[in-house]
Amino acid sequence: MKSLGIHILVELFHCNKEKLKDLESIKQVMKKAALSARATVICDAYHKFGEEGVSGFILIAESHLSIHTWPEHRYAAVDLFTCGKHMDPWIAFDLLASDLEAEHKVSMEVKRGEVFQDQEE
Amino acid sequence: MKSLGIHILVELFHCNKEKLKDLESIKQVMKKAALSARATVICDAYHKFGEEGVSGFILIAESHLSIHTWPEHRYAAVDLFTCGKHMDPWIAFDLLASDLEAEHKVSMEVKRGEVFQDQEE
Repeated sequence: MKSLGIHILVELFHCNKEKLKDLESIKQVMKKAALSARATVICDAYHKFGEEGVSGFILIAESHLSIHTWPEHRYAAVDLFTCGKHMDPWIAFDLLASDLEAEHKVSMEVKRGEVFQDQEE
Repeated sequence: MKSLGIHILVELFHCNKEKLKDLESIKQVMKKAALSARATVICDAYHKFGEEGVSGFILIAESHLSIHTWPEHRYAAVDLFTCGKHMDPWIAFDLLASDLEAEHKVSMEVKRGEVFQDQEE
């Protein structure tokens, strides 16, 4: 068996509340995280919810990086779906955790698309 | 404890290969799935990888819906991150599985942002 992709879900707790509200700050750190992890950025989109959090998504050649923030809980949900071996997703997460000043982080790695080695139909 | 969001990862196996290659078909089924699940669409973006698969996402007011397809393996990875209670994410997945003619699907539900009820800092 081989997996076609790895999906990593990361919980960032006790972040800097002001950074989680700041659309420009989120855009910058997401782009920096993607590039640092050696992802190839295709396009991105962000949305700020009034006085509340930010959602953002970067489509990368290796799949995607997303973020959703809840400043009122000092929490950000990040996920990175990657295929291929040249990326190092953990660089992206360390950078996001550091830039958002997360005091606590939890991650979960899920193998996606487990197929037999020769399964091309 | 309460969770701020629910992240559902779905594996769609043995799909219709031609549909997984078809950018317009993927766009249509994704939009239909989001709207059927009562999501509020903010924006979307898609990318077709040469003769291969398609990646796409819809940023929704309730978080996001994404897809990555591997036609050569007749496989699609879908994930839906949702917060709030008015959406029914399973409607979206049933519709995607049906439209992409998946013969087998596996799903995993992950609670995101588990915080104490009164945790607003």
